Amino acid sequence: MIGIIAALLTTLSFVPQAWQVIKTKDTSGISLGMYTMFVVGVFLWMIHGFIIQDYAVIGANAVTFVLASIILTFKIKYK
Amino acid sequence: MIGIIAALLTTLSFVPQAWQVIKTKDTSGISLGMYTMFVVGVFLWMIHGFIIQDYAVIGANAVTFVLASIILTFKIKYK
Repeated sequence: MIGIIAALLTTLSFVPQAWQVIKTKDTSGISLGMYTMFVVGVFLWMIHGFIIQDYAVIGANAVTFVLASIILTFKIKYK
Repeated sequence: MIGIIAALLTTLSFVPQAWQVIKTKDTSGISLGMYTMFVVGVFLWMIHGFIIQDYAVIGANAVTFVLASIILTFKIKYK
């Protein structure tokens, strides 16, 4: 139960960040290094999920991958 | 193996973000909502790790908790 709340919080936390970046296009404080590493890492988590056949790992990381990719795209476009 | 690389990348990705925030004190593009949810979420992941007795989950989330807390503290202090 705590694990589910934890997964929801860490996954959905990227919603306000993605929303803020889309709305303001302000990415000055955001680290390019962080989101580059993070997007690659989350993609590997997704592959790991497929390997261990864990749909929670696949699902949570698929959502995070989309959100973090949006943030990374805006960071590259409006740095 | 992919899981270990994934964990290292998503955990260590917060190092460049924390470092950038400490160095520049520029947190304008960073979402307060994201880091509030994220720090709470990572803390719950740590508790989940203790419950399931998984030291990888505890360790990775302990490191992320410290890094994300630094970013959140700077966001609150220099918004």
